[in-house]
Amino acid sequence: MSTPFPASVYAARLDRARALTADAGLDAIVVGPGPDLAYLVGVEGDTIERLTALVIPASGEPTVVVPRMELAKVRDTAVGSLGLAVSDWVDGEDPYALVTAAMGGSAARFGVADALPALHVVPLTVRLDVRPELATPVLRESRMIKDAAEVAELRRAGDAIDAVHRRVPGLLRAGRTEREVAAEIAAALVEEGHRTVEFVIVASGPNGADPHHEVSDRVIQDGDVVVVDIGGAVPSGYNSDSTRTYAVGTPDPEVARRIAVLVRAQQAAVDAVRPGVTAEQVDAAARDVLASEGLADAFLHRTGHGIGVTTHEEPYIAPGNALPLREGMAFSIEPGIYFPGEWGSRIEDIVVVTADGCTNLNTTPHELTTAGS
Amino acid sequence: MSTPFPASVYAARLDRARALTADAGLDAIVVGPGPDLAYLVGVEGDTIERLTALVIPASGEPTVVVPRMELAKVRDTAVGSLGLAVSDWVDGEDPYALVTAAMGGSAARFGVADALPALHVVPLTVRLDVRPELATPVLRESRMIKDAAEVAELRRAGDAIDAVHRRVPGLLRAGRTEREVAAEIAAALVEEGHRTVEFVIVASGPNGADPHHEVSDRVIQDGDVVVVDIGGAVPSGYNSDSTRTYAVGTPDPEVARRIAVLVRAQQAAVDAVRPGVTAEQVDAAARDVLASEGLADAFLHRTGHGIGVTTHEEPYIAPGNALPLREGMAFSIEPGIYFPGEWGSRIEDIVVVTADGCTNLNTTPHELTTAGS
Repeated sequence: MSTPFPASVYAARLDRARALTADAGLDAIVVGPGPDLAYLVGVEGDTIERLTALVIPASGEPTVVVPRMELAKVRDTAVGSLGLAVSDWVDGEDPYALVTAAMGGSAARFGVADALPALHVVPLTVRLDVRPELATPVLRESRMIKDAAEVAELRRAGDAIDAVHRRVPGLLRAGRTEREVAAEIAAALVEEGHRTVEFVIVASGPNGADPHHEVSDRVIQDGDVVVVDIGGAVPSGYNSDSTRTYAVGTPDPEVARRIAVLVRAQQAAVDAVRPGVTAEQVDAAARDVLASEGLADAFLHRTGHGIGVTTHEEPYIAPGNALPLREGMAFSIEPGIYFPGEWGSRIEDIVVVTADGCTNLNTTPHELTTAGS
Repeated sequence: MSTPFPASVYAARLDRARALTADAGLDAIVVGPGPDLAYLVGVEGDTIERLTALVIPASGEPTVVVPRMELAKVRDTAVGSLGLAVSDWVDGEDPYALVTAAMGGSAARFGVADALPALHVVPLTVRLDVRPELATPVLRESRMIKDAAEVAELRRAGDAIDAVHRRVPGLLRAGRTEREVAAEIAAALVEEGHRTVEFVIVASGPNGADPHHEVSDRVIQDGDVVVVDIGGAVPSGYNSDSTRTYAVGTPDPEVARRIAVLVRAQQAAVDAVRPGVTAEQVDAAARDVLASEGLADAFLHRTGHGIGVTTHEEPYIAPGNALPLREGMAFSIEPGIYFPGEWGSRIEDIVVVTADGCTNLNTTPHELTTAGS
């Protein structure tokens, strides 16, 4: 079987999703290709024009609707090992009728997974003659709490990205372009155990002041501060995401001082994590340290995002999110400070909530690290 | 400006989309990240959790709704060069209210582009209190007919993939795995001018009998027939897609005979292409040749699909599609024959409909080509 976990893991996830579907008052949920489908049955890949969908009724058994040409691939996942019902179809047939049948012929309320494209949402809405709702609350509840097998995969991903960060000081040096360095970092991600490279941000000097900068042909200068934010998926599909800030040569003392404040802010947020504390309280822990040093306005984004089979998922560690943290939640803690036209810095770890605090999956030094110059 | 075409090309596309929106009786269409947005304004990238959307009202000017952190990137496209209205938003604000405002406050009928995920379709539906329709007919009409600049890009993509196919006989040989060969082909795609590698199928021996096989660790054997189906996007985002069948060593004479029939079937479909002929008539032209040699049952899929900023789009060259072809349509012609457990073959070119026939963008030999053994 080509899934990262044994069939029993997927069976438990499906049972939980069905129970949560019933709890939400939905008659069924429909999940197309994307992270939810990978999570629930181990079927990977993106949405294409032909509908593949897992239908989970609140009562009754799940059914997978799949184009016949995809059937063998889908059977080689938990769909096959759990013996799920399959409705296959060929070009010219109506897959939305199969989805409706899998719901028992109709639904008064149905949910669709986030990733299902309009291409399929709209005809399904027409066929069922009901407005769709988002299945997000159902699937979020399940996906947000990582079990031991998932934490092990996130740890594997954390170890892999830490190994890459340990190599970065040897790759970053004055005279090279961000793009050249990024290409070698991307290769290192694969060498250190990632299956895919999801992003490689190398933001040097003034480019570091844009939290969304990715990479450019800018030549790295002596004295630059460089933000390196990198991540990818290990073979199971679970993701890494870690940011460190490097100094090429000797940084300006005031820059170093501010980055030391950021390191304290990041640590304060990590220290705040435990069950029952809210997401916004963790965000505030970082923000308060920065504010106490007059750096509140330099922090332009939320403190973090959940991670698992995607790199951005619930829970979001942001102002206004009163969600109480629970054991098993996994997310980034990544405050940053940005000075337009000058420089920026960000420090990011992935943490997993434990019974009385959290485990930090990234262990390379947080402090401004000197790279080769 | 970092778009592949001058601003006037995008202005014309937006005007056409607006006119078609009005013709379809829709008050507005909403286009999120994906091929339609790349086509209309040159904004690339995938959908993320924060909404970016182009709103085109049937009367009035288009507006782009965009997260503030994406604003600079979006302005560096036709959105900036055409001076389109922009509504930016930050976390905590409601982007669906901005979409509604861009429609003039309400809509009795609105269309959403295929790629917009349920994550955004559902809240928009709630906000507008109207069921969404697909904007497909509007956007298809526009995207399906390629202008001269687009045909030039498809030709560039065709030249690039032909250059790769010319290198394949030197890479395929007995004793290597499909995966090893595929990795070198992927590198060749980039070397020959592709920006991205979209797919590399190397299906040897019995794997060739599965039209959806991609690549495996199977070791290629002397006497194998190998299907190589490859494509990627050139820097403008336009795609290549070409399949050839290779023989490693000397193929079985009956295999060679059947492939010669397939070559004739593929050519018959190419020869059938001209304005006014329907998509299904082109499909039938290939199918009829195979049927005349007793190979009808070995052809498991449609004859072709449109191509442009995606590798699968309208028009689909399939049974039941009565769409009359028009000058400027671009699509694949790729019949195949499949013998489960034994072998398979597929031959694929991209053609563009001209005033009195078609231009074939792929010029490498169709015949079974002998690779190094």
